Amino acid sequence: MRPTVYIKDLKNHVGEEVTLKGWLYNKRSSGKLKFLILRDGTGYIQCVVFKGNVSEEIFDSADKLTQESSFEVKGKVKAEPRSVGGYELDVTDMKTVAISHEYPITPKEHGIEFLIDNRHLWVRSKRQVAILKIRARIVKAIRDFFDSRGFTLFDPPIITPNACEGTSTLFEMDYFDLGKAYLTQSGQLYVESGAMALGKVYSFGPTFRAEKSKTRRHLTEFWMVEPEMAFYNLDDDMDLAEEFLEYIVQTVLAECKEELKELERDTTKLEKVVRPFPRISYDEAVEILKKNGINFEWGNDLGGTDETVISGQYDRPVMVHRYPAEVKAFYMKRDPENLKVALAVDVLAPEGYGEIIGGSQREDDLDLLLSRIKEHNLPQSFFEWYLDLRRFGSVPHSGFGLGLERTVSWICGLEHLREAIPFPRMIYRNTP
Amino acid sequence: MRPTVYIKDLKNHVGEEVTLKGWLYNKRSSGKLKFLILRDGTGYIQCVVFKGNVSEEIFDSADKLTQESSFEVKGKVKAEPRSVGGYELDVTDMKTVAISHEYPITPKEHGIEFLIDNRHLWVRSKRQVAILKIRARIVKAIRDFFDSRGFTLFDPPIITPNACEGTSTLFEMDYFDLGKAYLTQSGQLYVESGAMALGKVYSFGPTFRAEKSKTRRHLTEFWMVEPEMAFYNLDDDMDLAEEFLEYIVQTVLAECKEELKELERDTTKLEKVVRPFPRISYDEAVEILKKNGINFEWGNDLGGTDETVISGQYDRPVMVHRYPAEVKAFYMKRDPENLKVALAVDVLAPEGYGEIIGGSQREDDLDLLLSRIKEHNLPQSFFEWYLDLRRFGSVPHSGFGLGLERTVSWICGLEHLREAIPFPRMIYRNTP
Repeated sequence: MRPTVYIKDLKNHVGEEVTLKGWLYNKRSSGKLKFLILRDGTGYIQCVVFKGNVSEEIFDSADKLTQESSFEVKGKVKAEPRSVGGYELDVTDMKTVAISHEYPITPKEHGIEFLIDNRHLWVRSKRQVAILKIRARIVKAIRDFFDSRGFTLFDPPIITPNACEGTSTLFEMDYFDLGKAYLTQSGQLYVESGAMALGKVYSFGPTFRAEKSKTRRHLTEFWMVEPEMAFYNLDDDMDLAEEFLEYIVQTVLAECKEELKELERDTTKLEKVVRPFPRISYDEAVEILKKNGINFEWGNDLGGTDETVISGQYDRPVMVHRYPAEVKAFYMKRDPENLKVALAVDVLAPEGYGEIIGGSQREDDLDLLLSRIKEHNLPQSFFEWYLDLRRFGSVPHSGFGLGLERTVSWICGLEHLREAIPFPRMIYRNTP
Repeated sequence: MRPTVYIKDLKNHVGEEVTLKGWLYNKRSSGKLKFLILRDGTGYIQCVVFKGNVSEEIFDSADKLTQESSFEVKGKVKAEPRSVGGYELDVTDMKTVAISHEYPITPKEHGIEFLIDNRHLWVRSKRQVAILKIRARIVKAIRDFFDSRGFTLFDPPIITPNACEGTSTLFEMDYFDLGKAYLTQSGQLYVESGAMALGKVYSFGPTFRAEKSKTRRHLTEFWMVEPEMAFYNLDDDMDLAEEFLEYIVQTVLAECKEELKELERDTTKLEKVVRPFPRISYDEAVEILKKNGINFEWGNDLGGTDETVISGQYDRPVMVHRYPAEVKAFYMKRDPENLKVALAVDVLAPEGYGEIIGGSQREDDLDLLLSRIKEHNLPQSFFEWYLDLRRFGSVPHSGFGLGLERTVSWICGLEHLREAIPFPRMIYRNTP
């Protein structure tokens, strides 16, 4: 009984009689004609019910369909450039599956809290469908990129006994008789062990931050991809990040035209995301801030506004490298030519979307790493296994992390991360 | 400085001089010759250091390399069918990166607890590398299968306010001011909302069970793929599951020959995994058990031993359908022709690997679903959003879940799930 034809494939069925199954998106009437817009998850088509072509019972049933009622419809496919999707169905038969009574999300405006309360239904709307399809296409682009370049997927654990970047923003749980455990904030330490085993690896999974930030750029649960490569230095890392972002954006541009149009995305901005990306040092970034009248002190981390000013200078992502070591994680390698800075890079998206990639070359010297752990007051015992990676065949290595939802937001042109994931989790919401 | 050539690509570089970077896997000496087995994560190659071809310093440095020391080596590639991987490197230059002192995992036998304690290093061993590569290839096969068949990836939340299948096996946490939250056991209820929006969806992510089972078939954290399809009935669901498993197994057979050989997997067993799979009802399964002298009462769920007896009758996966509704989840649809059974299916892997797929047609009638929720003493308020999917345009729909680690174990022929994931989490272990 499953559908044999979906709306997206109708171009191969012009002139044929097909049966489609889905939900009523919209309808209108004009005397002896009823126009039903059917959606089936793959697209939209206008189904034309002409009184002369169907029984009275069927004609009446078309009238009774309400928004989001489910039905099956049989008819002949014809090309119709003026119609949504470019095709129409001349209906010969119809069967109502279930009538939907007072569907809560109507074409009128709704408040955002109401929509998120109804996220399980909101995902059916045209805009959300477009975003979710782009999200899925981005995920596939990410995986294809690494799979076709000799990387091996290496899934780090979600439940971890310790913290990667401090303990204040961790979700904590009881783990049987073993005491407290935490939800991972990053798989990075683990993928480093993978890089030593497999050369080039990546992880791609959910990560968690119990951050009390209520901004549009924060989710408590978000997906992150983290490649890690043995024998890569910071320059190699930046080369890879640049190629990676170009690939994602250009793939979506080529393959999600309909969805970007639905979102009214200005694609000319995305077309500019091609290599080479500008690479500036943190020092140069500070100069830019000062030139723009911002009172910024060397040594601070870049804030959201700072990032917007810097990325505003460029028409494509900008890579800011060599941050003050003090503001970066303990595992980042210092620049041998200037020990005050870490061999780190942040990639700032254009159009004010902020940091989408953070990466670095990792400290590969055992003694230096040990002293960083002490400086950061981290318990060495938790990191013994990680230190082993420096005890046994340490090599220069680098990697980065890209946040999926920030990338989806940027590419789709969203104002808030909450639309970039099916069921957003924020400080004040973990439902539905 | 990143590697420009990896061992797996040497077939394209025969006769050329290349530089390889990696770790010493093994070595032996023979007078003026040193044979170093280099591993770089993509393969293994014997590097031949002839005293006459290199400086004395380099010849000595080759001697000093210990197991898992990292080094770079330059030389000419030659085909050598007798050598590991089929190629050899005639070394002209070498550079030690880091000497590894007393690498803990030696070629001798180690206890399993010692190996898991050193999982971050154990992943470097030949067998673990083979398993992890097959795991990555299975993940890609799973995603390719759905992506190329019109499915949209739809990520359900990991942090959930309620339980899908009972509360006794949930990991619990505090969620800011919103009270308790739980780690997901299954994304199924959520992907149902996705199927109503997008027609055919799948999720693929980590799921959690705080089960106090210490068996070789249980992990507390494991990855699960869950497709969900609007307008699919149980037969459609079984057709899809069958095509899906065949695709995964045949893809691994075709593309992971080296790895399967390393694992000494009997591939003739896997070659038999082709459609059609046998489909038997639970009633027929009970008959099989009785014929095999097992005292089994109709109405019970199948246990591990029962599954082994049933799957032992066949040379490929067997699909057992129409289980007693009492032993299955509340959301499964009853068979209209026999209300005592649910339209459920479990797929049992051959060779005693047990259930790898569980699926069903879902109850799409609002009133029946409401009465099931009451029968199971579940709090209706938690399921209001899920009930909405029946209130607004309900359609017949089905789906299933496949456990990744069980699939990896079966295809690789592993005895325990703990080798099927980079960092296994079990009741008595959440480190490293």
